Amino acid sequence: MINCKTLSGDNCGVQAVIMTQQIAVYSVLHKLPSLLKAALPQLQFHVVEHGAADALGALQKAEIIIADGFLLSPIIHQLPNAKWIQCTYAGVENIVAAVDKTKLPLPFVMTRLTGDLFGVQMAEYVVSEIVNRERNLFTYYDYQKIAKWGKESFFPEVRTMMDLTIGIMGFGEIGKDIARTLKSLRAEIWALVRKIPEDKEKLAFVDNYRKVEDLPEFLQKCDYVINVLPSTPQTTGLLNADLLKNCASKETVFINIGRASVVKEEDLITALENKWLSAAILDVFEKEPLPPDNPLWKMPQVTVTPHISGISRAKDIVKRFMENYEKYKNNKPLLNVVDFDKGY
Amino acid sequence: MINCKTLSGDNCGVQAVIMTQQIAVYSVLHKLPSLLKAALPQLQFHVVEHGAADALGALQKAEIIIADGFLLSPIIHQLPNAKWIQCTYAGVENIVAAVDKTKLPLPFVMTRLTGDLFGVQMAEYVVSEIVNRERNLFTYYDYQKIAKWGKESFFPEVRTMMDLTIGIMGFGEIGKDIARTLKSLRAEIWALVRKIPEDKEKLAFVDNYRKVEDLPEFLQKCDYVINVLPSTPQTTGLLNADLLKNCASKETVFINIGRASVVKEEDLITALENKWLSAAILDVFEKEPLPPDNPLWKMPQVTVTPHISGISRAKDIVKRFMENYEKYKNNKPLLNVVDFDKGY
Repeated sequence: MINCKTLSGDNCGVQAVIMTQQIAVYSVLHKLPSLLKAALPQLQFHVVEHGAADALGALQKAEIIIADGFLLSPIIHQLPNAKWIQCTYAGVENIVAAVDKTKLPLPFVMTRLTGDLFGVQMAEYVVSEIVNRERNLFTYYDYQKIAKWGKESFFPEVRTMMDLTIGIMGFGEIGKDIARTLKSLRAEIWALVRKIPEDKEKLAFVDNYRKVEDLPEFLQKCDYVINVLPSTPQTTGLLNADLLKNCASKETVFINIGRASVVKEEDLITALENKWLSAAILDVFEKEPLPPDNPLWKMPQVTVTPHISGISRAKDIVKRFMENYEKYKNNKPLLNVVDFDKGY
Repeated sequence: MINCKTLSGDNCGVQAVIMTQQIAVYSVLHKLPSLLKAALPQLQFHVVEHGAADALGALQKAEIIIADGFLLSPIIHQLPNAKWIQCTYAGVENIVAAVDKTKLPLPFVMTRLTGDLFGVQMAEYVVSEIVNRERNLFTYYDYQKIAKWGKESFFPEVRTMMDLTIGIMGFGEIGKDIARTLKSLRAEIWALVRKIPEDKEKLAFVDNYRKVEDLPEFLQKCDYVINVLPSTPQTTGLLNADLLKNCASKETVFINIGRASVVKEEDLITALENKWLSAAILDVFEKEPLPPDNPLWKMPQVTVTPHISGISRAKDIVKRFMENYEKYKNNKPLLNVVDFDKGY
């Protein structure tokens, strides 16, 4: 849907008639509309409040929608004028699940927010949590509260990144950013991929490529395994208890910053209780917020963070929207288009 | 001093006479001698226990000494046969202070343990502590103890490395490793150097070079300032209270993993109390262990760790000793020779 809007040019005193699209902003991130307007003053953004009586009506008029996925999934088939939907974060499994597969292809393009905006953030999180664990930084944090120096020896025995073999499950842009960072700290990197690349396409920051059928070896070899896989039917329950027994040889630490569905919570707890996994660092959960009575909270070998490893910030969303809007305007392919067959 | 030792060749049954040096190992790191012997079985290591009655006598016979600096500094002028001393860590200011400058040059070469063994370790520490602070990981650690999710919003406002300007004071091998790592996470890097390099020698991972006389601007521009300078007369008290006022514009966070002497403790506390510095992350102190009544322990904006950012591990010392021994044997220049005029 194209609207016409008349603008006054303050400097030239002439009237210009330009075509404007209906662009709806539907997000719980309240500062997003003002930043969008500041960055793209020539566009008209219509702010749709979640829960407002006319919310659906307003969204139905829009050609372009910038939205949080969880707000949009219940109405995904009720947007007759949408041509492009920009999601505000990377995980779109709620929307994918809500889509009636008999109605594919959808009448609009959906893009998600991913890539360099998340990869280096998640790499920061991963490095930090590995170092916190290997170098006892949480212990020193507790010691500080009681003014205790607490260094056990002049030369404490610790592992550094140079000593660690780190496997990354999910090797898209985010996985690659994590690998690149960990390799700069000289970890040995194993990448779990769909297809082993040709020699000339192999990346300098990856030491070994393996496929899903090699998971037993992959788990046997890695001191840390980091999951950044999206949630799809293929990845759901992939790390079952039987497979996790392979972690026993290295007493692997499992870091999950992808989606909780990759391992059933009971299988994860079994692996921890049997010491196949020596620890887990978890940022994603089957149910979020993690309920207070969930046993993971109290397991001493588990670190819980509240889904903060990769954060969509208003300015990052605006930056990506600007990039994609430029492409949209010029009929160029958009960045990070969701593939509803693959599920991400 | 060269000794002769007769060895039995088990396989050939002949007697071989080879020249061996007296090599003394004088360290509180008890596993060091066994690792040295395993790595270099052809050499004869004499283990000298700290506090043993004949310790000095044993050290006085040695041509090569592998030693902790703090053990050696009281007897640095009493080693008539020493030709090469390999220190087990990077900081040699105790030894430098103990040296009578009228006796320079010393009759031996001293090498310290530095370079890639510390740089990436310290980079790990720096990334981790910055992320812990910016992403509230210590807060979530506390929340986990009470099963509290504690995420303030769906889109928390945090700073990532991409948002930070980070200044590094001291740009030797360690400083460069830290800069390289932080740049891989897309921080803006300022390096404080003795001499601005020529354009063609500028490093891709440094955005701005500045000299000591530019410290006011350097401190005004940096969100984080990381000190890795050695302790020398030139660096002692360099960051005085007057200079630290420049941090007020960015409310800089000060990370000290070099030596405490770069800022007087009272000046540091003044800067924190006046909020010129918003926080300090300290791994080095005027007196270590930090006394329990030291006010730094209880300041909420201060993180105390017990001098663990760069750790000499037995295997790292062995590796470096092997590299340097190979050079020593072949009369090649050793790695990381201490310059007693510069003081490191």
